[in-house]
Amino acid sequence: MSRASLFIVSAPSGAGKSTLSNMAVDHFDGLEFSVSYTTRDPREGETDGVHYNFIDKARFDEMASSGGFVEYASVHGNNYGTGRSDLMALLDAGTDVLLDIDVQGAEQIRASMEGEGIFIFILPPSIYECGARLKKRGLDDDEAIEMRLKGAVAEISKCLDYEFIIINDDLKESFERLKSIVLAERTRRRRVESKVKEIFNLS
Amino acid sequence: MSRASLFIVSAPSGAGKSTLSNMAVDHFDGLEFSVSYTTRDPREGETDGVHYNFIDKARFDEMASSGGFVEYASVHGNNYGTGRSDLMALLDAGTDVLLDIDVQGAEQIRASMEGEGIFIFILPPSIYECGARLKKRGLDDDEAIEMRLKGAVAEISKCLDYEFIIINDDLKESFERLKSIVLAERTRRRRVESKVKEIFNLS
Repeated sequence: MSRASLFIVSAPSGAGKSTLSNMAVDHFDGLEFSVSYTTRDPREGETDGVHYNFIDKARFDEMASSGGFVEYASVHGNNYGTGRSDLMALLDAGTDVLLDIDVQGAEQIRASMEGEGIFIFILPPSIYECGARLKKRGLDDDEAIEMRLKGAVAEISKCLDYEFIIINDDLKESFERLKSIVLAERTRRRRVESKVKEIFNLS
Repeated sequence: MSRASLFIVSAPSGAGKSTLSNMAVDHFDGLEFSVSYTTRDPREGETDGVHYNFIDKARFDEMASSGGFVEYASVHGNNYGTGRSDLMALLDAGTDVLLDIDVQGAEQIRASMEGEGIFIFILPPSIYECGARLKKRGLDDDEAIEMRLKGAVAEISKCLDYEFIIINDDLKESFERLKSIVLAERTRRRRVESKVKEIFNLS
């Protein structure tokens, strides 16, 4: 079996990345998230090994220094990372993986995965709309929203490093685009070659 | 505006190429066939400039020798070709083009279009099924079907030169795959870059 595909999805806050990523993983058989590692404490309702692998700082540093993460970062004093061997095990078993990560994480993967990975950036339809969605979500006060928007503007310029760009104006249409990227990837020669050779006895 | 995309669809007889190509062109706005040139006589119901551009042998040879075709071939003593300037005019105007052509035509395009083109091969689910479909279509006698099948086997081995391979086991699923290739292509950075730069004022 040929190795499965790795989809990297990045976006500024408020673009709809988590919603679209969850929809895609729900929709496709054989498309999964890789469970991340974190040093932060579990929140109410979070299960170890399901939402995150919760580990302590010492273990995290050990994994980081031995190349155990394909990408990792520190956010608000907590560490987050994607385990290299977990990711490889999924891909080698034929499971496509979707990583929902920020632009810095995506840059690390670009550097460490040797050309593997399909890079997808999700954009809000405008800066204004991005702010309006954050406001509607109701998790941040105005000052926090302003800070998130500043961050968003900086991140948006990175979209031009990505292979695919989805302008998330309409959720249904954006989901069609995300699905099409996954299904087209699964229709590539690399992915069907062994089946084709078997059916038609090609060498 | 960035140049539109060129989709090349090849398949052996009985794989379902024409059906799928027509469905795709019907489905998408801005996806069209390029009208081919031919030296054969119009059949009942065929309109010049719509189904084909009907031209005489002298004109065809003149176009062929001056590089006026991106691909051309002779089939049963008649000539068929895809006009270079027609194709370029469509692409430059932002219209995606689907060319439904055989493997020899696809090879000529690969050689003459400098890396442009998304190459898609449609396979029957088996040689047997390919024969059964030709039989069911009722256009050929058993001897002609046998000859078509021999040709199909030779063509099938060329599928491994194509970027995408659709095994047409189920028409609905195959159509989803073909649509996904078109929509994913339209979501590529190259295709949305100018819009993104305009919305977010990026340079």
